[in-house]
Amino acid sequence: MTDFIGDTHGQWLVTHVLQVVGRPIESVSHLRIEENIHPKSLEGVWALRGFTSNIRYAEKVEKENLIAIQEGLGRPQATCAALIPIRKNEDWWALAQDERRAIFEKQSHHTQTGLKYLPAIARKLYHCRDIGEPFDFLTWFEYAPADAEAFEELVATLRKTEEWKYVDREVDIRLVKV
Amino acid sequence: MTDFIGDTHGQWLVTHVLQVVGRPIESVSHLRIEENIHPKSLEGVWALRGFTSNIRYAEKVEKENLIAIQEGLGRPQATCAALIPIRKNEDWWALAQDERRAIFEKQSHHTQTGLKYLPAIARKLYHCRDIGEPFDFLTWFEYAPADAEAFEELVATLRKTEEWKYVDREVDIRLVKV
Repeated sequence: MTDFIGDTHGQWLVTHVLQVVGRPIESVSHLRIEENIHPKSLEGVWALRGFTSNIRYAEKVEKENLIAIQEGLGRPQATCAALIPIRKNEDWWALAQDERRAIFEKQSHHTQTGLKYLPAIARKLYHCRDIGEPFDFLTWFEYAPADAEAFEELVATLRKTEEWKYVDREVDIRLVKV
Repeated sequence: MTDFIGDTHGQWLVTHVLQVVGRPIESVSHLRIEENIHPKSLEGVWALRGFTSNIRYAEKVEKENLIAIQEGLGRPQATCAALIPIRKNEDWWALAQDERRAIFEKQSHHTQTGLKYLPAIARKLYHCRDIGEPFDFLTWFEYAPADAEAFEELVATLRKTEEWKYVDREVDIRLVKV
């Protein structure tokens, strides 16, 4: 389990917060990331908890492409980050696996779009719908300042997709490494 | 979150335990089911925690068939139950979504087999791999004594499938309502 803690101190300084859709999140100056605290941290202004899991939509070739191209988190030059918590509506979650896959990739090209920005934009997905959290996913991105424009393009592209019509809450928290 | 607590008392009496594969579980006389305790119960001899989630493999038509035919838990005549905790190996979890789906349904007919025994055998799946539990899934079944033979047929059929080659720990706990 990973806790993203909005607080007055931490490894990441909040530069700006964009309330994309739905209820906003309380503003904080810093973000800390803590691993495997039990129970969930009660410190800070807020804490969002998520877990990594197996791949839910990517097929064999897509998965192989991702693994071949992607780079890990924590690269020294990747001093910019974004935490984007997202919630999808009940219509999305009532769909069967093949229906969600069709929207995710055939219509919205989610994996293909992400691949275009690799390895510059490193990404890690945390799940939280199943553990009673206010969001369904926490997506964490890291990139170098020189790739900031590419990152804007990536999020703008995804927000225009069919898949994003199911997103009913999204907050985009931008950060720089302290 | 749902906790299945092996203990000296509870709503369900353990009639027998079959260690199918892998390490056994400590023997208990009773099982209790508790919802939404925070944090996980420390009472009892052991506690297995899981959460329900969205459908991971079933496609539209399969999902509609399931919903049309299945009955809920807690039917008065369904006085027999089974708790079957299962873990799958790393080879399974390293597969992409389409590879797991192919094994699960095209090769192993998991959903089709379950459908054959509906509505007699009611079933609920809990996930636990992602929250640091010793098993990946907890499957709960309820049925009337008259359907006990059908239930044996169902579990025997599933255990012969390609999918089950990836199961590296399985315990089958049979119960009757107190």
